[in-house]
Amino acid sequence: MDNKNKKIVPKILSGFMELLPEDQIIFNRWLDIIKKNFELFGFAPLDTVIIEKSELLSAKTGKETEKQIYRFSRGGDDLTLRYDLTVPLARYVAQCLNDLNFPFRRYQIGKVFRGERPQKGRFREFYQCDIDVVGDGELSLLNDAEIPAVICAIFRELNLGDFVIKINNRKILNGLFKFLGAAGDSTEILRVIDKLPKIGEQKAAKELTLLGVKKNIVGKIMDFIRIKGSNEKILSELKSSSVLNDLFAEGVRELEQTLEYAKCFGVPEKTIRLDLAIARGLDYYTGAVYETFLSDYPEIGSVCSGGRYDNLAEFYAGKKLPGVGVSIGLTRLFDQLKGTRTLQNKRASLSKVLVIPLVDDLTVPLEVASKLRGAGIPTEVFFADAKAGKKFNYANKLGIPFAAVIGEEEIRKNTIALKNMDSGEQKQVSVEEAIKIIG
Amino acid sequence: MDNKNKKIVPKILSGFMELLPEDQIIFNRWLDIIKKNFELFGFAPLDTVIIEKSELLSAKTGKETEKQIYRFSRGGDDLTLRYDLTVPLARYVAQCLNDLNFPFRRYQIGKVFRGERPQKGRFREFYQCDIDVVGDGELSLLNDAEIPAVICAIFRELNLGDFVIKINNRKILNGLFKFLGAAGDSTEILRVIDKLPKIGEQKAAKELTLLGVKKNIVGKIMDFIRIKGSNEKILSELKSSSVLNDLFAEGVRELEQTLEYAKCFGVPEKTIRLDLAIARGLDYYTGAVYETFLSDYPEIGSVCSGGRYDNLAEFYAGKKLPGVGVSIGLTRLFDQLKGTRTLQNKRASLSKVLVIPLVDDLTVPLEVASKLRGAGIPTEVFFADAKAGKKFNYANKLGIPFAAVIGEEEIRKNTIALKNMDSGEQKQVSVEEAIKIIG
Repeated sequence: MDNKNKKIVPKILSGFMELLPEDQIIFNRWLDIIKKNFELFGFAPLDTVIIEKSELLSAKTGKETEKQIYRFSRGGDDLTLRYDLTVPLARYVAQCLNDLNFPFRRYQIGKVFRGERPQKGRFREFYQCDIDVVGDGELSLLNDAEIPAVICAIFRELNLGDFVIKINNRKILNGLFKFLGAAGDSTEILRVIDKLPKIGEQKAAKELTLLGVKKNIVGKIMDFIRIKGSNEKILSELKSSSVLNDLFAEGVRELEQTLEYAKCFGVPEKTIRLDLAIARGLDYYTGAVYETFLSDYPEIGSVCSGGRYDNLAEFYAGKKLPGVGVSIGLTRLFDQLKGTRTLQNKRASLSKVLVIPLVDDLTVPLEVASKLRGAGIPTEVFFADAKAGKKFNYANKLGIPFAAVIGEEEIRKNTIALKNMDSGEQKQVSVEEAIKIIG
Repeated sequence: MDNKNKKIVPKILSGFMELLPEDQIIFNRWLDIIKKNFELFGFAPLDTVIIEKSELLSAKTGKETEKQIYRFSRGGDDLTLRYDLTVPLARYVAQCLNDLNFPFRRYQIGKVFRGERPQKGRFREFYQCDIDVVGDGELSLLNDAEIPAVICAIFRELNLGDFVIKINNRKILNGLFKFLGAAGDSTEILRVIDKLPKIGEQKAAKELTLLGVKKNIVGKIMDFIRIKGSNEKILSELKSSSVLNDLFAEGVRELEQTLEYAKCFGVPEKTIRLDLAIARGLDYYTGAVYETFLSDYPEIGSVCSGGRYDNLAEFYAGKKLPGVGVSIGLTRLFDQLKGTRTLQNKRASLSKVLVIPLVDDLTVPLEVASKLRGAGIPTEVFFADAKAGKKFNYANKLGIPFAAVIGEEEIRKNTIALKNMDSGEQKQVSVEEAIKIIG
């Protein structure tokens, strides 16, 4: 503690998000909405460790991710901070195989870490909110169709305007690459397609050529992912496609079935759109892939992505544990919307009432506070020695909607002077009446 | 990805906690109880970063902690995983000084990291649940008295049996050391006293002697912290004590006042006990110190500790920002109670009903599920192709209390066959009736 007398500038690193109370309250309300809906759909909570053994995570790390992970040594251990919640899920399921019931439905909400170069909207420490269903040996396609229903329920309640879930199936793309004789480059091609909205067609085509994909094949891939239209139209084009192999046909069948089921789940057709350009960057997807876009904020990119993976846990479990899931990147989403009108009406406190004692003996004011809390009303008591004006001002600045003033008169009459901080109206009421008014 | 075909044993590091769904559900219920009570007392949520600049955290690290922190470099940055939520709070308050309202009341629930030698009940990654009130320049003693009221509300609702909050004041101990001419060794003496329950009086006395404290002074310290009795009796002994300096007298005054206020807050005398042997290991406390013990589980040690600190943020802010707070070490507490009868009645799912479709067209079953969710009932649909027995068995194993079977007959009659999984009773009901029964 040599630096005891040196003043240190308090500052967090760039690429990290911290919020003021008024924003944190909204962020937490979002977390609550997400959690509630995950639970309504029967997902159980899970909370895996943040520090994992590196060998476990790197088993599933793609090259891109490997550069970004926070990896360090301590006491002879090679450690990594988790960079997503999916690979740890695979490890957890394999580890607890005999203690879990399948299909295993879990949600996890927590921070993950990626040492990316900081830039607007990119974070090094950020929340992911994940659901996944993992089957033992097999997993019904109905699970793939339920995912969009969960996304719908959440984004409707978040009330961020219209949104579109774009869906595709990796088998279709991989079937196409195989048909074109480019199966060996599948992973890299998918990664380039995934970057398309960011880098544009021309640069994407160039990157594909640099990968060694022949120019005419690049053209065919581009033509294919450019097919647009209603789900019905694209499906019909796929079914009459010249691409003829089992993988492709299976992908088309799965996609059609998933869209059909999604209707049963109440997902409107305008909300779930087949898009052949949706590829996802991660290696492990083998079937359905999803991305979700907010219609009013297209610049944010996908706010909820995921897919089906059939082999994620095989390195750990030595058996097939197919899964499907999605992840909401909440930190990025929140950060991007922070400045917009969507996030107005801020309060810096969750308290619904500020008890203001105007007497020295706090017995009665504290009893009142206790009764209000007993009725489920978040209640704060103003303790500092200050003038009445300053006390009301504190309630105002924090956005606490009511003040409950308790002085000699109120104690004598067994009432409280309840002030509505918005309207300024003040009246003498009993605690029971106050509970009704505030609650 | 060279190790693509090598099977890796899925295992987390020792000293880290992960739970099966049935335990995670209880753990999360505890988190909810804690959060709810923090909010009822008007604390606002905060969520600081997990990775901090080392220079910021090490400014307040004591020697003991310094050995334990996870510190590493990346891209030229010297980084540390937070080891508590208090030092980051001080940094945050100093950083956001102009945007916060004081007194600033915040709660934070999150993981912290300490690279301790793993041993039973000690974790390297664990949850802390903290509340703190930070004042600008000054902070009323009423805040010190409110802390035990919050602890009471939480531990009553956690329903872990009787508990005792032990309280002391650092000014009393430091005043004593000053009086005895041992003020220079205060920090080290406090640390030894803090370890007393673990190492015993003899070893503690020896450690104090090794610090250079004279034998007769060690004896006097030991005699002092050995004073036991009712709060009234100890206070009266303190007031007639031969220790005569301002610091000591101020500590006694504060302690008496805090105990008096705590009564107003409804904290029963049997629950808050003055104990002169409570010292706390951390350097930064300057006034009240608290520890909380479960009467039925004394071996766990303190489950909720904290205190008053007057100078924590001064390195960052260059001004006085006194605070008071406590922290619940939830991971350790949960781990220690996991095996006991306190944590029985386990369910591996939050779902209240499992919808079991016995038809191919899922339209009606999914509509029913949607209606149940609309009524706030967590609902899972069984998707896998299996025999009816296996489906009921799944509900049983997960502890889902109801099964809603929907076959041809139910669709024709517009009913569901609702089975109570505990009693085995099954009856045909409308969805509305089912909602009443399940909800």
